[in-house]
Amino acid sequence: MHPRIGLPVVGMVGGGQLARMTHQAAIGLGQSLRVLAASPDDAAALVARDVMIGAHTSYDDLETFAKACDVVTFDHEHVPPEHLRRLTAAGHTVLPGAGALLHAQDKQVMRARLGELGLPVPRWAPVASAGDVERFAAGGGRAGDRARWPVVVKAVRGGYDGRGVWVVSSAAEARPLLASGVPLLVEEWVPLRRELAALAARSPFGQGAAWPVVETVQRDGICVEVLAPAPGLPAAVAERAEQIALTVARELDVVGVLAVELFERTDGELLVNELAMRPHNSGHWTVEGARTSQFEQHLRAVLDYPLGATGMTAPAVAMANVLAERADGPGLDERLHHLTARWPALKVHLYGKQPRPGRKIGHVTALGGADIAALRRDATAAAAYLATGVSAEVRHR
Amino acid sequence: MHPRIGLPVVGMVGGGQLARMTHQAAIGLGQSLRVLAASPDDAAALVARDVMIGAHTSYDDLETFAKACDVVTFDHEHVPPEHLRRLTAAGHTVLPGAGALLHAQDKQVMRARLGELGLPVPRWAPVASAGDVERFAAGGGRAGDRARWPVVVKAVRGGYDGRGVWVVSSAAEARPLLASGVPLLVEEWVPLRRELAALAARSPFGQGAAWPVVETVQRDGICVEVLAPAPGLPAAVAERAEQIALTVARELDVVGVLAVELFERTDGELLVNELAMRPHNSGHWTVEGARTSQFEQHLRAVLDYPLGATGMTAPAVAMANVLAERADGPGLDERLHHLTARWPALKVHLYGKQPRPGRKIGHVTALGGADIAALRRDATAAAAYLATGVSAEVRHR
Repeated sequence: MHPRIGLPVVGMVGGGQLARMTHQAAIGLGQSLRVLAASPDDAAALVARDVMIGAHTSYDDLETFAKACDVVTFDHEHVPPEHLRRLTAAGHTVLPGAGALLHAQDKQVMRARLGELGLPVPRWAPVASAGDVERFAAGGGRAGDRARWPVVVKAVRGGYDGRGVWVVSSAAEARPLLASGVPLLVEEWVPLRRELAALAARSPFGQGAAWPVVETVQRDGICVEVLAPAPGLPAAVAERAEQIALTVARELDVVGVLAVELFERTDGELLVNELAMRPHNSGHWTVEGARTSQFEQHLRAVLDYPLGATGMTAPAVAMANVLAERADGPGLDERLHHLTARWPALKVHLYGKQPRPGRKIGHVTALGGADIAALRRDATAAAAYLATGVSAEVRHR
Repeated sequence: MHPRIGLPVVGMVGGGQLARMTHQAAIGLGQSLRVLAASPDDAAALVARDVMIGAHTSYDDLETFAKACDVVTFDHEHVPPEHLRRLTAAGHTVLPGAGALLHAQDKQVMRARLGELGLPVPRWAPVASAGDVERFAAGGGRAGDRARWPVVVKAVRGGYDGRGVWVVSSAAEARPLLASGVPLLVEEWVPLRRELAALAARSPFGQGAAWPVVETVQRDGICVEVLAPAPGLPAAVAERAEQIALTVARELDVVGVLAVELFERTDGELLVNELAMRPHNSGHWTVEGARTSQFEQHLRAVLDYPLGATGMTAPAVAMANVLAERADGPGLDERLHHLTARWPALKVHLYGKQPRPGRKIGHVTALGGADIAALRRDATAAAAYLATGVSAEVRHR
C-alpha cells in the first residue's frame, strides 16, 4: 500500500513501451507504476517515478522488486516460469499467475491445452528431428491428412515479432533448425485470408470484457497496422472470436489483458495462433479508440477493480506502428513538427527511443467515420514519415 | 535537448495536478516532463521521472531548474514577475512570456489592457480606500451609471478558487479589506445567467486553436462542474466567446493554453472575468472529450509544434471535480472499486492526494449523447461518492 496516497502499488516487470503506456494510464487511476527496467534508458524508465534497474532473469532482483509492490505484473513473457512460481510461493501476488502465463511462454503447453478445451488450433506436433517434420508434412499428424509442404517450424519458447518462426518446404530446410537443440514444434501452414486479434481482459473476481475484434496487418512477421473493428468481418465470426478470447481467459485463469492472435482461414474458419497475457500491440488503438484502454483495463484487472466499458469511441480506427528505417535526415523533433502540421487530428505515441533502423519507436492512431481506407492511408503515411523523415509522395516519385 | 531521445526538454514550474496531467500527455509525445515541485508528495512529483524539489519563489531554484530545460512553462501563476523577466534576460525560454503572464497575475493590468483592446469587461476601478468603493458604487466609475450595491472587491494579485474576492454591500463592509494594505480593485456586481469558459491555445508561430465554449458551474467560488459544449448557448455567442479568447491570446502574445473565464449576463452579453495561461480546470473534459487535450496542446504550443485538432469526440461531456469531504469511512481504493462497478464508462482522474476535506483530489468525466442532464447526474454522483465514500442515495434518504 502506497503510504502517501492510500492506493495499492502495481509493479510491472519490463520497462518497454507497454510499461510506458501502462504508467500513462496508471496516472489517471491515482497510481504511479513501479517498473523493473533493464536500463535507465528503457522506454518506461524515462517517464516513471518508481523505477528499479534490474534483470527479469534474476530471482533476487524480482524479489527485491516485488517486496515494494502489492501486485506484480508484466510487460513481456520472458520471466522464467520457475521464478514466477517461487515469487508466488514467497507470498507475492503475481498476475497473471505462473500457471496462466506458462501458456503465453510455451507454445507446446498452449497448443495442447487449447486442444483439450476444444478450441480451434492449427494441426501441430512436437518435433525432435527433421524426420519428424517430414512425417508431419506427410500427414502423420492426423489420420487422413494429405502430405503438404510448406510447414511451419516454431520455437516452443521465446519467439516474438516473427523471430522463432520458420516456414520450411523440405526436411533438408528443417535440418539446421533441429540441429540447434532448441525445443521446436511443427504446424500446418494455414492458407490465410488475414490475421485477426481478439483482445479481452479478466479480473480475479472473474469478470471478463472483450473489445471489438481487429484485423492485424503483418509485414515480415511483424504487426504493422491494426484496423478496428476488423473490416467486413461477419458478426457471427466476430462473436466467435470474442468467445474464444473470453473462454481462454476463463479456462486458463488469466488475470489482466489477454490477446488472442487468430488466423482467419480462406474458408472463413478461425484458428488460434498465439496468446499474450499483457497489453498487446493489437490493442494500442484502444488508447483513444475505446472507452477504456487496454492499459487502464490491465491495471483495473490486476487491482481487481471492476472492468471498464470496452465500446469504441469512433466508428473506425486505424493504428500504424512506426518501425524506424532511417536515422539520417530530419531528427525526430523535426519529423514530429511536420507530422503534426499535416495531420492535426492524428494521435502520435512515441516511446522515447532513438529512431535507429528496425526499432519500433512509436505508433500513430487515426480515428474517424466508417471510411477505414482513408484512416489507413493517413496512419500509414504518417508512420512512414516518422520512420524515414521522407514523405511518401517524395519517396514514390 | 534530451541526450537520449533527441527531443527538447519541457520544464513545468509547479507540481500540482496540472503538471501531473501534463506529464501524462507528454509521454505520448515522446517527452518526459521535467517538474519543479515544492515537495516529493506533490501530485506531479509522484509520477514524473525528472523532478526537482525547490521553491517557485526562489530565483536560484528557478534558474537551476531552467538550466536543464529547453523551455520553461507553468502550472500556476505564482512565480514573481521579476523572476520571469530575469530568467528571460538570462537567456532561458519562458512560455508564456513574462509580459503575457502578467495579465494572469495582476487583475488591474489585465482589466486595463482588455479595456484598451475594446474587449468586454465589468465596470471596474482601482481603490485605495473605503471611500473609493463608495464612490464606485455611487456611479463614479463611469458617467451616467447609477449607484448600485453590492459591488465586488478583488485582490489585484493572488486570488484563486474564490479567495481574494469579496462581495460587499456597504463602505463599512469594505473598510476592513482596505485596511489590510493588499492592493485591491472594485468591480460592478454582474447579474449572471451563468459562467462560461473559452479555452484556446496559441503557438509562438502565431497559430491559434479554440475548443468549444463550456459552461462552468461554481459553488462557493470554486468550479465544481463543467459542461461541454455550454448547453443552449446560441451559436453567435459561442463564436463571440471563441473570438474573445483568440483575440486575447494574439494581442497579449500568449503561448500555451489560455482560459478566459466569462460571465454570461442575464441580458445575454459576455464579460471577461479572469484569465489563466496554463491548462485549466475548465478544460479537463478535453482529455477524453476532445481530439487534442489541453495538456497535449499546451505542450505542442510551448514546443512550437503545430496545434492539434480541437473537435469533440462525443456530442456532450460533463466533468465534475472531486472535492474531498470525508476522510473517514471507506478508503480511496474502496471508493474507486465501487465507483468503477457502478459507472463502467466514466473516466476517473485521481491526483495522488489523500482525501482530506476541502482538497480537490480528482475529477470524473462522463461522455455521451446529447442528454447532458444524464451525463451531469452520473458525473456529479460519482464525484460525490469519491468525495464522501457515501452514495448519494444513502445520503439523501
